[in-house]
Order: sequence, then structure tokens, then C-alpha cells
Amino acid sequence: LESGRMVRLRRLLSSLHPAEVAHLLESLPPSTRHLAWRFVSTDHRGEVLSYVGDEVRSDLMDNIAVADLASLTEDLDPDDLASILRDLPEAAIEQVLHTMDAQNRHRLETVLSYPEDTAGGLMNTDTITVRADVTLDVVHRYLRLLGTLPDATDSLFVVDREDKYQGILQLTTLLTRKRELTVTEVMSHGVESIPALLPAAEVAQRFEKQDLISAPIVDEKGKLLGRITIDDVVDVIRDEADRSLMNMAGFTEDEDTFAPALISLRRRSLWLGINLMTAFLAAWVIGLFEATIQKQVALAVLMPIVASMGGIAGSQTLTLIIRATALGYLNQSNIRWLLGKELALGALNGLLWAAVIGVVSAIWFEGIGLGILIGSAIIINLIFAALSGVVVPLFLRRIGADPALAGGVLLTTITDVVGFMAFLGFATLFLV
Amino acid sequence: LESGRMVRLRRLLSSLHPAEVAHLLESLPPSTRHLAWRFVSTDHRGEVLSYVGDEVRSDLMDNIAVADLASLTEDLDPDDLASILRDLPEAAIEQVLHTMDAQNRHRLETVLSYPEDTAGGLMNTDTITVRADVTLDVVHRYLRLLGTLPDATDSLFVVDREDKYQGILQLTTLLTRKRELTVTEVMSHGVESIPALLPAAEVAQRFEKQDLISAPIVDEKGKLLGRITIDDVVDVIRDEADRSLMNMAGFTEDEDTFAPALISLRRRSLWLGINLMTAFLAAWVIGLFEATIQKQVALAVLMPIVASMGGIAGSQTLTLIIRATALGYLNQSNIRWLLGKELALGALNGLLWAAVIGVVSAIWFEGIGLGILIGSAIIINLIFAALSGVVVPLFLRRIGADPALAGGVLLTTITDVVGFMAFLGFATLFLV
Repeated sequence: LESGRMVRLRRLLSSLHPAEVAHLLESLPPSTRHLAWRFVSTDHRGEVLSYVGDEVRSDLMDNIAVADLASLTEDLDPDDLASILRDLPEAAIEQVLHTMDAQNRHRLETVLSYPEDTAGGLMNTDTITVRADVTLDVVHRYLRLLGTLPDATDSLFVVDREDKYQGILQLTTLLTRKRELTVTEVMSHGVESIPALLPAAEVAQRFEKQDLISAPIVDEKGKLLGRITIDDVVDVIRDEADRSLMNMAGFTEDEDTFAPALISLRRRSLWLGINLMTAFLAAWVIGLFEATIQKQVALAVLMPIVASMGGIAGSQTLTLIIRATALGYLNQSNIRWLLGKELALGALNGLLWAAVIGVVSAIWFEGIGLGILIGSAIIINLIFAALSGVVVPLFLRRIGADPALAGGVLLTTITDVVGFMAFLGFATLFLV
Repeated sequence: LESGRMVRLRRLLSSLHPAEVAHLLESLPPSTRHLAWRFVSTDHRGEVLSYVGDEVRSDLMDNIAVADLASLTEDLDPDDLASILRDLPEAAIEQVLHTMDAQNRHRLETVLSYPEDTAGGLMNTDTITVRADVTLDVVHRYLRLLGTLPDATDSLFVVDREDKYQGILQLTTLLTRKRELTVTEVMSHGVESIPALLPAAEVAQRFEKQDLISAPIVDEKGKLLGRITIDDVVDVIRDEADRSLMNMAGFTEDEDTFAPALISLRRRSLWLGINLMTAFLAAWVIGLFEATIQKQVALAVLMPIVASMGGIAGSQTLTLIIRATALGYLNQSNIRWLLGKELALGALNGLLWAAVIGVVSAIWFEGIGLGILIGSAIIINLIFAALSGVVVPLFLRRIGADPALAGGVLLTTITDVVGFMAFLGFATLFLV
């Protein structure tokens, strides 16, 4: 970059919102990214870090001395600060905590004491609380005294003497009701408090179902700890939804598109290595039937069709089950219905395409026997594909593995092996 | 279901929030779903319809007479009502519009006049507006007069005499600043108005980047038309993110998991049919080399490995590009860098796995020539896979097709054909 472009870059960066700077940094190749990062004003760096994905963040943070971190993160909310600190070594966290005043340190430690993917790990501690027995007029005067309210404040939390959560007082209620009324008379009990240990995905579902903007987080005794706001929930939803797509290709949802090739190589080659093992397994199955293929080479020409149809059909079922699981649709009673439906679909599609493929093969290689044989193999493989598409993700979930990550590999192994076995096995028995 | 369960079902349905009823209906098989739908109280049906996905909605609406629709949809916001009406025939829309009073009809017609996936199609018309020259005290009295404010109201919109958007007055500002101040003195210009024709995906990006809760929608002259709230944006984000995952398996993001088998059959078999054509193409390529395979059956055993490694590597690149496109990361200047990176990764992975596969094959079939041959084919296929993984989705986007839907099919066609051509072609030239 020549100096004219540098000046323009610096000007551009200072005119953008930190979230937009984060987006820009995420779409830059490594060397330009590090150059641009140096041009981000130090006041904004903390906030920019809170917006970028995990992988890009650790890339950027490699270039920051721990001593500088404390000043970068001064103005951040505890939830954003916590998500940055979690990537650092223990000693660095201690050092940052050390620079904070007692109140902020206590707040941050509360957030850090909960796992990152729970309500407690996502929460902010900037709640405004009021007592139930005061009048709205008192609340009005209290807010005027505060001067400013935190972002995304749509309601105040009503607590008792022990800080136990009682309900919410919406700002819209505060503005539309008479000032002589007490909080008790107008507060809402419609927003249930969220236990700090509730998984983030369930927090997101609650926000979505009830159209919440903020919600109170409580400890096991019902004491108010903080609040979660919709902007953090939107990040959770985005990540959740991205996860299945990315995991199915062997990535994490935070994959840095522009990571240097050598850094990406490790994960990519690992993924290819895992898939290679399943390919060798399929090759070994084919190898069992070498003599058969030798006698009838048409089998070698047609066998990829059997395997590929099974793989495609199985992936459809797998994708549907993975998404249904992510959206919380599946339970004991509907899973049996769904398995039945998928098996029926597998059988119907099997019959349909067995006929098509059978006829084409019979004409192509002038052999009715070959047509019947490949048709039968297709039917068997599509039924197995439907079965595996349902059972494999549920099994992986049961043993605590990620259905999206391992599901595709396992599924294509099954459809390859079953497809080749059925087709070449039948051929060995009946044809040659 | 016996009557005891029916009573429990009815009780359950009436205790749930409409969004939860919608979620429940989406996870029920067809017969149970229609039974449960009959038990949803008529007051809630409209709202429940606004929460379910498109496919489930049209399933449920098949059972409603158009005459009943008007009463079902009485209490809905214009945006929700509009999204339901868009699925209906023109005549039914007319009939519903006919039952509404002039003001509501006008509002609904405004929303309907914009495409569903634009800011205008998502917006609500329930904005509360104030003038810039009044004092906060006047605003306070005005809100008290209104009595209630619409859901997700975090700010009022400041407009001039011609209803042109000027800025926002946040409720938090209204509550914390002195009542003698005028709106001009405290209003914020930080929230840019959104043109009604802006695509929904870009609206979502703006909300995410600026952590908005509501934003003003204006026509081409800057006149305030309505507002979009975060709950509608969350739906857009969820749909956007689901779309890539579902499209890659040949579904739409609204796929009804529990649609009857015969309804699902059409889409599933279409998808298998498209993939079958690519499988036949691959088979035809193999067929060109029948004589070669006849002489050396080991080729038939190993050839799926070459195709499968290319398919896996290509899908990884494809997924990354599809996601980067969805998140708006790609532009002219970084795409060339990315292509270079993916080609380098393809070559590196090619070399690495060519060595592994070459050695294993050479030992397995006791032939160094075969090992060198499959290794070369792997390198060529992985480089082509990387190239296709970048070029195919960009090309599809350029011609207006969906990269997620058609990308996988096109990509595996390329990796299959290139893989088989390279491997069997080299074998014909050098080995037999």
C-alpha cells in the first residue's frame, strides 16, 4: 500500500462504527488486516475486538502486549470483556483484573464464573433496579438523577430487600401510567427470570418465542445477577445457525476465512485425512469383489451411481434431522413418526429411481439381469440411507458428539459400504 | 388420542404463548397437527399463524375458510398480517381488506405494496411520532394520553410537518433529561433511516452492526412510513442462516420437517433426479475407460478415492465461500487473495495426501507405477476442487442462481469427472 491509500484507510477506519471496523477486519487478508489494525484508534480497539469472531480475535490479540490489554478493554461492558479475556492465559486475566477497581473487578469475576455458553456468561451487570413499594414519581426522579441509562434498557427490574427478582417495570409503562401509582400496581410478572446456568441456545429460544429485548438473570436462589440484551442473543442465534453449516464441512462457526494458508492447512488436511479413511474402507469393500469386476467391467462403471444416490438421499435426511434438532423440534413421540416417514420416502424414491436406473443400465449394457441387480441395490441403499440419516445424528447426540461434524462422514461411509456391498455382492451371487 | 389426552392437549395449548404453540405445531406429524390446530383458541390463531414457517402455515390455512380468515387476523400487526396474506390468492386478499376499516386497510396496503423481503415488507406502521419543537414535558403528557405504547418501542420518531424523518428521541433520553428541554436539544441523529426497498438481509446487517432495537423506514422522499423492530429482524437472521444449510441439501429454509411423505416425495425425488444426471455423467466417463479397467481391476478399486477426496476438499472451499458471501465478506480485492490461498491449500493438501495414498496403493497392489499415477490424479483433482470451490459459487451468483442450492451438484460433477478422467486417463496412457 502506498501512503495515499494508507491515509484513506486511516480516515475510513475512524469514520466507521466499531462493528463495521470488525466486519472490515474479518474480510481482509492477513497482512492488510494487521496493517489496518494498527490504524484502528486505541479507544476503539477494545470494542472492535468484542465484535470479531474468536479466530480473528486471537489473530489480532497475538499482536497486543498484555500490559496494553488493560487499557484497551477499559470501556467495555463486562460481558464483552469476559468473552475477550476467556481466550487469554490465566496470568494475563489476573493482570487485567488487577488494574480494575473493586466494583468492576467483582462484576467481571461474576460473569467469568459462568461458562461462556450459558446465560451467566452472556450477561451484563448493568441492571437498573427499583423497589416494588415506591411510586412511579420516585422512579422518574431516580432515573433523572442517574442521567443516562445503559444501552438496550427497555425495562427496570423490580427486586426485594434481598435483591431477589420480583418482576419488570417497562419504560413504556413508566411513561404512560400515572405518577402516583406504585411500582407494585403496574409492574409486569410476564417475563420469567433466567437461571444463570441456562445454556445460551435455550436463552435464545426464550428471547425468540417471547420477543424479549432484555431479560433478568438470577442465581439459584433467585437473586438478580444481571441481564441479557437482545444484541448478545442475536450473536448467539447467528452462531448457532452458522454452526451446523460450517461443522458439516469440518469447520467451526468461527473459522477465519482469511487465515493464512499454513494455519488453515492443519484443519483442512485433518478433515481430508478422516474422509480418506472412509474412502479406503469403501475401496477395500470394492477390492473384495475384484474377481467379479474382472468378469464384468460394467459393474465398475455403474457402481459409483449406487453409492452416490445413497449419499445424496442420506444427506438430505441428515440435514433435516440436524436442523430439527437445533430448533428443538424432536422428541420421543415424533421421532418414531419421522423415522417411519423417512423410511417410506427412502423406499418410494428407491422404487422410482431403481426403475429409471435399472432401465438405463439394462439398455446401456444390454443386460436385463444387470438392470434388475442395480435396481435392487438402489432400493436397499436408499432405505439404509434413510435409516442412517435419522439414526446416526441421534446416536452421535446421545454419545455427546456433534451430529453435524461427524454425521456426514459416518453417513457416507455407511451408504458407500452398503451400496458397494449390495451391488457387487448381488452381482457375485447372481450374475457372474 | 383418547379424550383424557385431548383435554390435556387443550389445556396445554391455552397455557402456552402463541409462539410456543407455533413451535409445538411445527413439531407435530400431520394428523396430530390438524387436531391440535382445532384446539387452538380462535383468538390466538392469527398470532400463531404469524409465527409458523411458510410451509406449515399453508398446511394449516388449507383448513380455514376465507370468510373465517378476516376474524382470525383481526388483532394482528400489519407486518404479520401481510406475511400471512401474501400466501393467499388475490381474491381472498381483497376479501380480507374489504372487512377492515379505512385506516387499517391503508396501512396494510402500504406494507403489501413492498416485496416481502424488503424493509417495507417487514415494517410495522405503529410508529409514535413527535415534532422537534415541543418540550419533553409535552411529549410526556402526550404519551400519558396514549395510554399504551406498541411492543418494542425504545424510541419515538421525530418528524417535520411533511412527516419527513428527522431523528429519534430515545425513551431513555426522555426519562433522564429535564422536562423543560425541547426535543431538538436531546434528539439523536445517530440512527439513519432505512429506505423501504432495502433488502431484508441488509436491514438485518444494519441492526446487527449498530445494535438497533427499532429503526425508521422511509420512502424515497424521506417520508416516515413505519418502523422495523428487532423481533422481525431476528426471524430474518434465523432464516438467512438456515437457508445455506437447507439449500445445500436441496431444501428451502421453510421445509416442513413433518410434511406427509407424499408431499415431501416430489422435492426429494427431484433432487435425487438432478444428482442422478451427474452420476450418469461420471459413469459415462468411467465407461470411456472400460478397456483399461478390464486390464487392471485395481483401478476400479481405487478410483472412488480420487473422486471422493476431490469432492470433500471442494465442498470445504464451497461452504467457506457461501458463508463468506452470506456475511458480505467478499469483494473484488480480497477474492483474488482467497483464490490464491485456496489453490495453495489444494496443492499442499494434494501433495500431502498424494504421498499417503500413493504409498498405500503401491503397497496394496504391488505397483510403484500405480502409486505415482493415483498420486498425480489426487494432486490434479484437489487443485481443480479448490478452483471450482471458489469459481462455481461466484459464477452461480453472477447468473442469479443460488450458490448453496446448485453449488454442491455442480462441484461434485466437476470433481468426479476430473478425478476419473485424470486417474483413468493417466492409466490408459502410461500403465496398460
